[in-house]
Amino acid sequence: MNAEKIPDIIIGRLPVYLRALQRLSEKGIQTTSSQELGEIVGISAAQIRKDISQFGEFGKQGTGYSIPFLMERLKDILKVHRVWDVVIVGMGDMGHALARYNGFANRGFRISMVFDNDPEKTGQKVGEFEIYDTSTLAEKVKQNKIKIAMLTVPATAAQEMADQLVKAGVKAILNYAPISLNVPENVRVQYIDPVTHLQRMTYYLD
Amino acid sequence: MNAEKIPDIIIGRLPVYLRALQRLSEKGIQTTSSQELGEIVGISAAQIRKDISQFGEFGKQGTGYSIPFLMERLKDILKVHRVWDVVIVGMGDMGHALARYNGFANRGFRISMVFDNDPEKTGQKVGEFEIYDTSTLAEKVKQNKIKIAMLTVPATAAQEMADQLVKAGVKAILNYAPISLNVPENVRVQYIDPVTHLQRMTYYLD
Repeated sequence: MNAEKIPDIIIGRLPVYLRALQRLSEKGIQTTSSQELGEIVGISAAQIRKDISQFGEFGKQGTGYSIPFLMERLKDILKVHRVWDVVIVGMGDMGHALARYNGFANRGFRISMVFDNDPEKTGQKVGEFEIYDTSTLAEKVKQNKIKIAMLTVPATAAQEMADQLVKAGVKAILNYAPISLNVPENVRVQYIDPVTHLQRMTYYLD
Repeated sequence: MNAEKIPDIIIGRLPVYLRALQRLSEKGIQTTSSQELGEIVGISAAQIRKDISQFGEFGKQGTGYSIPFLMERLKDILKVHRVWDVVIVGMGDMGHALARYNGFANRGFRISMVFDNDPEKTGQKVGEFEIYDTSTLAEKVKQNKIKIAMLTVPATAAQEMADQLVKAGVKAILNYAPISLNVPENVRVQYIDPVTHLQRMTYYLD
């Protein structure tokens, strides 16, 4: 397997497959097929077979995929067997929601620190986390070798915070602010935008 | 153009193209190319040309795409020239964040009503919205012919709320709860899951 050669669009589908497999697994199901997976995730069975075959031979004709085995391989490929520390920058409603979100467990991530620049918020607690001042962001991120951040500040502050994160060594930013970030080529940005999901559904409405 | 024949995976990319075009447009840019768009959204130029050509001839060889024209066509296709009313069910942190989110404007959506089942929340205001009791959900959704809901309740309540929404006529659900929903075939569900976005990035980290 040559990481350089797998298109990003395929990489982007692997977490969706992994989530579907985890849900099947939680129901006690041990094997699945590209057809069944396809129905769950809304991608054709042929595409799923093609995507997965990029990483080796997993399924057997007629018997389908072993769910535990395929999950292990996908976790390996996506590097989520380890637990990544993640910081949250911006403790408004969205930051609070993410700090308390219980969907990270067992999926490779752990919130490590949370930040805000509002003196009325810094020092306060959100669940187990004390809100740190963003003036200490670069130092703390560097010290703890944090590679991943979720950016939940207003659009006006997003680029400046992204710059600080990148300078401190962050390589992956999940951006909730409704603006495009400019980052160096070796930094990844993903956008969470409810509108793109809504628009994908309105196509089918009358 | 035959709506039945366009694969959902292509439909799913159109909102991403539209968002990129809107950002270019906000910068005053009038034309773009599949190369430029591809760099912004991380999809190959060839794929973009292929996707867009499903809906007719838009670009001219050598001159690229007219951004205003392509935006209009994408809005037509995605049915977001009109403004869709959306309800939010579950006024925890995430519901609050969405009720106050300013990224819906000019993109086809308007929050219309918000609901919670907590007597300490119902009757309170979130921005301009009064929080209604979920006991009135079905009635209000039906009365106002709402077709779209964002579901931000805890996982344990999500299926029950989804059932009520579907019964009241909702055809599209954006689900923030970390569980799979069972809905009839004529109802669309999209999932917002920060972990899938994070996992897509860890693949590239050391």
